[in-house]
Amino acid sequence: MTSGLYAGSFDPITLGHVDVIRRASRIFDRVIVTISINTSKHALFSIEERTRFAKEALQAFKNVTVVSSHELTVNFAEQMGADVLIRGVRGSSDIDSELAIAGLNEQLDAKVQTIFIPTAANYRDFSSSMIKEIAKFHGDVSHFVPEQVAIALQSKFQ
Amino acid sequence: MTSGLYAGSFDPITLGHVDVIRRASRIFDRVIVTISINTSKHALFSIEERTRFAKEALQAFKNVTVVSSHELTVNFAEQMGADVLIRGVRGSSDIDSELAIAGLNEQLDAKVQTIFIPTAANYRDFSSSMIKEIAKFHGDVSHFVPEQVAIALQSKFQ
Amino acid sequence: MTSGLYAGSFDPITLGHVDVIRRASRIFDRVIVTISINTSKHALFSIEERTRFAKEALQAFKNVTVVSSHELTVNFAEQMGADVLIRGVRGSSDIDSELAIAGLNEQLDAKVQTIFIPTAANYRDFSSSMIKEIAKFHGDVSHFVPEQVAIALQSKFQ
Amino acid sequence: MTSGLYAGSFDPITLGHVDVIRRASRIFDRVIVTISINTSKHALFSIEERTRFAKEALQAFKNVTVVSSHELTVNFAEQMGADVLIRGVRGSSDIDSELAIAGLNEQLDAKVQTIFIPTAANYRDFSSSMIKEIAKFHGDVSHFVPEQVAIALQSKFQ
Amino acid sequence: MTSGLYAGSFDPITLGHVDVIRRASRIFDRVIVTISINTSKHALFSIEERTRFAKEALQAFKNVTVVSSHELTVNFAEQMGADVLIRGVRGSSDIDSELAIAGLNEQLDAKVQTIFIPTAANYRDFSSSMIKEIAKFHGDVSHFVPEQVAIALQSKFQ
Amino acid sequence: MTSGLYAGSFDPITLGHVDVIRRASRIFDRVIVTISINTSKHALFSIEERTRFAKEALQAFKNVTVVSSHELTVNFAEQMGADVLIRGVRGSSDIDSELAIAGLNEQLDAKVQTIFIPTAANYRDFSSSMIKEIAKFHGDVSHFVPEQVAIALQSKFQ
Repeated sequence: MTSGLYAGSFDPITLGHVDVIRRASRIFDRVIVTISINTSKHALFSIEERTRFAKEALQAFKNVTVVSSHELTVNFAEQMGADVLIRGVRGSSDIDSELAIAGLNEQLDAKVQTIFIPTAANYRDFSSSMIKEIAKFHGDVSHFVPEQVAIALQSKFQ
Repeated sequence: MTSGLYAGSFDPITLGHVDVIRRASRIFDRVIVTISINTSKHALFSIEERTRFAKEALQAFKNVTVVSSHELTVNFAEQMGADVLIRGVRGSSDIDSELAIAGLNEQLDAKVQTIFIPTAANYRDFSSSMIKEIAKFHGDVSHFVPEQVAIALQSKFQ
Repeated sequence: MTSGLYAGSFDPITLGHVDVIRRASRIFDRVIVTISINTSKHALFSIEERTRFAKEALQAFKNVTVVSSHELTVNFAEQMGADVLIRGVRGSSDIDSELAIAGLNEQLDAKVQTIFIPTAANYRDFSSSMIKEIAKFHGDVSHFVPEQVAIALQSKFQ
Repeated sequence: MTSGLYAGSFDPITLGHVDVIRRASRIFDRVIVTISINTSKHALFSIEERTRFAKEALQAFKNVTVVSSHELTVNFAEQMGADVLIRGVRGSSDIDSELAIAGLNEQLDAKVQTIFIPTAANYRDFSSSMIKEIAKFHGDVSHFVPEQVAIALQSKFQ
Repeated sequence: MTSGLYAGSFDPITLGHVDVIRRASRIFDRVIVTISINTSKHALFSIEERTRFAKEALQAFKNVTVVSSHELTVNFAEQMGADVLIRGVRGSSDIDSELAIAGLNEQLDAKVQTIFIPTAANYRDFSSSMIKEIAKFHGDVSHFVPEQVAIALQSKFQ
Repeated sequence: MTSGLYAGSFDPITLGHVDVIRRASRIFDRVIVTISINTSKHALFSIEERTRFAKEALQAFKNVTVVSSHELTVNFAEQMGADVLIRGVRGSSDIDSELAIAGLNEQLDAKVQTIFIPTAANYRDFSSSMIKEIAKFHGDVSHFVPEQVAIALQSKFQ
C-alpha cells in the first residue's frame, strides 16, 4: 500500500489543488492532504476554515483524508506513514524551487520520495494568491475555486 | 496494483536513468522500462544492445521489466496495463517540454497519468547525449554509466 | 491602418497557429500569414501544400492573407507594408529565443515592431513537430490540427 | 480604432516603461496608461506623484493618456473601451507569471486580448523596485528613470 | 593582482556560500566577503553575529577577508579596490535577476566586472531562507550550514 | 598567475565572443581562446578560417592567444596549464545546460574551475547560428560580427 502526502497552505483550496488531488487519488492507495499551519505567513482564512473548505471540496474522493499540521513536512510524512510527497507542478517558474525543496527533503529524510503531478492546462494559470487578489478587487472567482470558497471569498472582501 | 511505464531511447542507459527507476520501483508495484525504437533519430547502440545494457543494470530491481516498443507511448502503456507514465526531471529546461508532452499524452489518452520524479542532484548534470560526446573525445565516463556501458562506449569510439 | 505579419514554416498549420491568427485578426486591420520557404530545414509538406492548408484553415478570417516568402522576415515585412511582426508565445522555453530574434530584427530594421500573442492554454502543449511525431506513430492528431491537415498527415504516414 | 491599456503600479515610471509605451503608441490608435491603486503593496510615491511623473514623461506621445484606477484591470479596460491589454516583457523569468495573468484575464473577460511588447535590450535589466533599492543607497539612477523622477528619488532618500 | 568581492546578507552563511568562496579563493589573489547591512529586510542574526559566523567558517582560507558594508555594492567594491564582483549561481531561476543586477552594476560602474561561479550540485538545493524555515520547524540543518551556525539556529528557535 | 581557457566552435567569431574575451582579458593574466575541432557538427568555415578570424579580431588583446584543439576541453585545459574555464552566459535558456556542462567537467577534472561571464545586453540577442541564418538570407550582419567576418559571410552566401 502506497500513501501520498500533499502539503500546502491551501489558503484557500483551488480547483487546481482539487485536480492534483483527484489525479493522486487514482495512483495512490491513500492521499493525505495536509494543511500547513505556517506561523510566518499571514493567512486569509483560519486553519479551521481552510480545513473545512478542503473537506467539502474533496468529500467525493474516498481515499483522501484532510488533516492539519504545524510540523516539518518530512517529519509529518514519516509520522503518518506516507511514502510519497506529492507536489503539483505548473511550469518552469515552479520547478527549480520545487526541485530544491525535494532535494532538501531527501537530505532530511531519504525514505520519503517526492513526485510531481502536472496540473491540467486550464488550471495552470492561477494560484491561491492570484485568486485572493482578484477577489479583493471584486472580480469573479467562481471558475477557479469550489463554490463554498467563492462565497467565502466574496463575503470576506465585501 | 499500480504499474508505471518509463519510456525513453536509453542510448545508452545512464546512472541517472537507473536512479529514477530505483525510486519508481519503491513507489509502484511494477515498473515497465520501455526502450523506444525511434525510427528518425540515429541511435549509437542497436535496440538489442540498449535492451541488454538496461537489463543488466536493472537486474537487482525485482519489479522492473525491460521491453522495447515502436508504438506511441500512450498506446503502448494502455496495452501493457500501465496506469502511470514516469518521467525523470532534471531542471527547468526540461519541464516545459515535459509538461507539453504530458498534456499531449493526456489529450491522446486521459486514463494514463504522467508523473515526474526528480533526479538526484549528483545525476542532474548529464544526459545520454553528453556522455556520448565525452566518450567520443575519449573522456572517462565511468562515473555516469553502468560499468558494462562504459566498456561498450570505450570500444565504440576506439 | 496597422498591418501585422505572422511568419513561420507552418509545416503544417496547427490549431495553435489558427488561434494566434484569430486573436491577431481582431487587433490589426490586416494580418499577413507568411509561410517561410526555409532552404535548410527539410519540410514534410511542400510550400504549395502548406499554403493550401493555411488558406483553407483561415478562410473565415476576412482580413487575413496567406503568402509565401524566401526572404528575411524583416525585409519581407517592409515590402508588404507591415508595421508589426506577430509571434505566438507558449511559455518560458520559447521566450528567450523569441526575445533574441525580436532584438535582432530590431537591429536589422527598427521600423517593424515585434509583439507576442499568448496561445490559449489548451493550445500551449503542442507544436508542428510534435504533431508530426504523433502522426508518424499513427496517433490521433485530430484535436491539434484542422481536419484537412489531419487527413493529409494520416495519408503521409500510412 | 484599437485602444491598448497598459496597467501597472509605476512606482515610479522608468525609462523601460516609457520605451514600451512609445512602441505601443506607434501600433495602437490610443494607449491608456493606467496607474493601479494597489491597496496592499506599500507604494513609495503617492498616486498623485506617480500620475504626475507619468504625465510629464509621456507628454510627447499625443495618443497616450494617463489615468489611475482601483479596479480589476479587465473591468477597467472594458469601461475604458480598450481592446488590448499591453504588457512589457523582459525575459523568461517574467513570462510564466505573465502568461498566467493573461490566461486569468481571458477567463474573466474573453473580449480583451493581452499582448506582450519586448523591452529594448538596454532597458531589460531594471525594474522600479531595483531602482528604488539603488536610490536608497544613494546610487545614481539617472540612466534608468526620467529626470524628474531621478530628482524626486534623490530627495526621497536624502 | 586581482581582487574579488562577494557580497550578500549571509543571514546566516551556508555551506553553499563557503563552497563558492573556496572556489573564488583559488582563482583570485584576494576575496573580500562583504556582509551587506540591508536596512529594509529584517535579518534573523545581527550584523555582528553574521560577521562572526562568516569569519569562523572561512578562517582556513588565508586570502579571504570578511567585512560589513551599508553601501551600494559597486561603490564599496571601488573603495576596496576590487576588480570583480563574484556571484554564486544555482540555476535558471537565479540567472535572469543575476544578469539584470550585473547589467545595472555595469551601468553604475563599468570598471567592476561581474562573474558567476556555479555552486556544487549538492549545494544547489538550499538558501539561507530555506534553512531558516527548516530550523523554525526544528528540522536538522547540520548538513547545510557550518557547525556554529547550526547551534545558533537551534537555540534561536527553541 | 591565473590562466583562463575559453573554448567554442567560433563558427564564426562574433562581437559577443569578442566582448566576453575582452572582459576575461582584464580579469585573468592569460586567456587561451580555443577553437574546438568538433567532428560531428558541420562547420561553415574551416578551422583555418575560424582561427584566422579570431586572431584578427583579438589582436588588440595582448594576453589573449588563439589555438585550436580536438581534445576534450578539460583535458586540453590541463595540458595548457589553464586554471579556469570561461563561459559566456546570455540568459536563462543557456544556464541549465551550462551548469550541467560545468558539473560534468568538474567530475572529469576537479582542478579546473568553470566561471560564467555575462554578455553585454546589446550582445545578448545573437549567436553564431543566428548570424549565419541572417547571412544566408542576405541580411546585413555588420552589427554582429567583426568586419572581416561580415565580408566572408557575404561572399559565402552570394
